[in-house]
Amino acid sequence: MPFLRGPVPLAHLLLRQVVKAGDRVVDATCGNGKDTLLLAELVGDGGQVWAFDIQPAALARTHQRLGAAGLADRVTLLACGHETLSTRVPPPVCAVIFNLGWLPGGDRTIITEPATTLPALEGALHILGEGGLLLITCYPGHAGGDRETEAVLAWAADLDPQRFHVWRMGQLNVDQGAPFCLVVQKATSHHAA
Amino acid sequence: MPFLRGPVPLAHLLLRQVVKAGDRVVDATCGNGKDTLLLAELVGDGGQVWAFDIQPAALARTHQRLGAAGLADRVTLLACGHETLSTRVPPPVCAVIFNLGWLPGGDRTIITEPATTLPALEGALHILGEGGLLLITCYPGHAGGDRETEAVLAWAADLDPQRFHVWRMGQLNVDQGAPFCLVVQKATSHHAA
Repeated sequence: MPFLRGPVPLAHLLLRQVVKAGDRVVDATCGNGKDTLLLAELVGDGGQVWAFDIQPAALARTHQRLGAAGLADRVTLLACGHETLSTRVPPPVCAVIFNLGWLPGGDRTIITEPATTLPALEGALHILGEGGLLLITCYPGHAGGDRETEAVLAWAADLDPQRFHVWRMGQLNVDQGAPFCLVVQKATSHHAA
Repeated sequence: MPFLRGPVPLAHLLLRQVVKAGDRVVDATCGNGKDTLLLAELVGDGGQVWAFDIQPAALARTHQRLGAAGLADRVTLLACGHETLSTRVPPPVCAVIFNLGWLPGGDRTIITEPATTLPALEGALHILGEGGLLLITCYPGHAGGDRETEAVLAWAADLDPQRFHVWRMGQLNVDQGAPFCLVVQKATSHHAA
């Protein structure tokens, strides 16, 4: 059991539950590539990871991290916006992870935006298989992040409870602006209306 | 990966992460004994479970359930309030679970109350080992449950973030009064102030 110091260990705990050898998964915002690396480890030899980012620096860092671990072969890096994911990744996948906001150590004026994030989230639900997880880390504590968080929460709260189990998992004894996780699981078909 | 249809599968997923063979754990509100049974399975032959309830019907049902599974030997059933748990269970334990509210199928006028629940939660933190989990399912949707939930949330939000990682995990696309989980993890000592 990891220490649940913030959204990252929680998201990784959940990914370890749902992603098995041979699976196909998506990192919608590869950033520094830490989530991509975990996914590449979990899917094993026979699995596949698609990782998106619009920033060349993010793709370069992720490529380097994967190369150092000898796992670059099982990852498809895509230099395009995550709003295209449902057209580029064949369903079904068992997990899609989003880490919203800016690239750590990068240009903080380049942030994810609701206009592309919401279509990307819809696309993620479209390609998820039964029982699959969509994990989103939201950052309400920066300008723009507050507005995006509000839009994502409203989107998530409106999902059909017969088709999706939707959870907000956030820390209580931290600042109001601290990041938190949204977890959306696709229900079984026999639960669908 | 179970379907996360509500607090029970989420709590059980977390218990499966933290409780291993040989561990010592507490069910502070055994009720119908379903959590007690899972705990008895997870701790194995060499482990031990302490299970509390003030209602004889709850203890009887739990005893029957454990007996049917052949696991009664590793469970100590205590016919007393959970506010006594820190005096009855020797530390450290790796998990304590609370399911607040009333006994399912029982007398709905007998509910857990803040005056005993809050000391019980304090007692649980006292006996938890490092990395151990306190899991609480809150029921804000009934009279008395709303008041208790508010008291428990205020208590949890006030815990020292250096000593405890405190999470509220609730569903977004359900009624406001739906039950949710609070998860409190004891931090490592080198994180303590």
